[in-house]
Amino acid sequence: MPPTITAFESSPDRGRGQARDMRVRWALEEVGQPYDVRLVSFEEMKQPAHRALHPFGQIPTYEDGDLALFESGAIVLHIAERHSGLLPLDANARSRAIAWMFAALNTLEPPIVELGMAMLVERDRSWYAERLPLLQDRVRVRLGELSRRLGGADWLDGTFSAGDLMMVTVLRRLNTSGLLAEFPEIAAYVARGEARPAFRRAFDAQLAVFTAASRS
Amino acid sequence: MPPTITAFESSPDRGRGQARDMRVRWALEEVGQPYDVRLVSFEEMKQPAHRALHPFGQIPTYEDGDLALFESGAIVLHIAERHSGLLPLDANARSRAIAWMFAALNTLEPPIVELGMAMLVERDRSWYAERLPLLQDRVRVRLGELSRRLGGADWLDGTFSAGDLMMVTVLRRLNTSGLLAEFPEIAAYVARGEARPAFRRAFDAQLAVFTAASRS
Repeated sequence: MPPTITAFESSPDRGRGQARDMRVRWALEEVGQPYDVRLVSFEEMKQPAHRALHPFGQIPTYEDGDLALFESGAIVLHIAERHSGLLPLDANARSRAIAWMFAALNTLEPPIVELGMAMLVERDRSWYAERLPLLQDRVRVRLGELSRRLGGADWLDGTFSAGDLMMVTVLRRLNTSGLLAEFPEIAAYVARGEARPAFRRAFDAQLAVFTAASRS
Repeated sequence: MPPTITAFESSPDRGRGQARDMRVRWALEEVGQPYDVRLVSFEEMKQPAHRALHPFGQIPTYEDGDLALFESGAIVLHIAERHSGLLPLDANARSRAIAWMFAALNTLEPPIVELGMAMLVERDRSWYAERLPLLQDRVRVRLGELSRRLGGADWLDGTFSAGDLMMVTVLRRLNTSGLLAEFPEIAAYVARGEARPAFRRAFDAQLAVFTAASRS
């Protein structure tokens, strides 16, 4: 039996591939591993049955035989360790690719999520106009640093890895922020990730879920 | 030669063990691996020599022979993979311990850092009084979920692991927030971590750096 992941029954991003199941779908497509998807509603996510899989009541989860995992970073790493294609064979290069996974999730994603949340839920607050530039500048600092490290390279450290996969999905959260346009090398890097056939297959699969849900 | 890590020459937390080198020191102490420390000033952290090691100009870094790593999560995982004592031998339990590392860094730490930053830099802003309770509630939700999962257990999933190490260091950032007192099981969990001899050795080592720096 293939592994089973969970995803939103109706994704709040309207199928733009910004929900975190996208990362797991993309990783599974890169390594050529078929998978099943169980869709969960917002209500189901907070029920004990789902919380037994995911203590924080979120998606994605990953079930494979006796193993149940949560956290997209952990799931992608688990897949990358068990199949070839997402981590270099050289031990040092492998550790560096994993470092980029953590950098995506712990250094880039937090200020990006803060900015996204503010644009979503703080628009009507009295402080929005004053605080927005502060949040944008925090993200700009990280994008500038990432851009300098990337330079003219295609990927963060040699060949495409799970580090790039996580970083591209994190950066895609900026799609509606206008900030990616300020960093052409980063925008090109994201576009390179999105152009990979495995990305396209994963994207189309999650979009099909949203499209079907909106029809019903 | 033992590996070399970097740490603040003078830590902004005044030696309370909340800088991220603490995680790496603790991991190295748990596995009994000696290490060297190179102290860096805030100015040095932003120079090209340090940025070659850490693209985002932060600490800690980790150098061992040909390998240079950044991101505390990646460094702790690297250490845990190469020494016994921080990851279970059973493959599924090992993947779950790594999932808790990611949960600490990607689910718990972001709202905790946001709260800490607001308490530090937004105190004089017009919106502070209105926004603080929102930030506290975001952290409370996660602490409640973590507390329910922990239940009466000593550690998150069986024996102490790198997942607990990361989680305890993340939760310690709440020491001055008053929130830990609302969740006695979490406070006891943090205290269990802090009582480990390896934690004490790591804590004392980083405190000695701060004490020496304040004397000079």
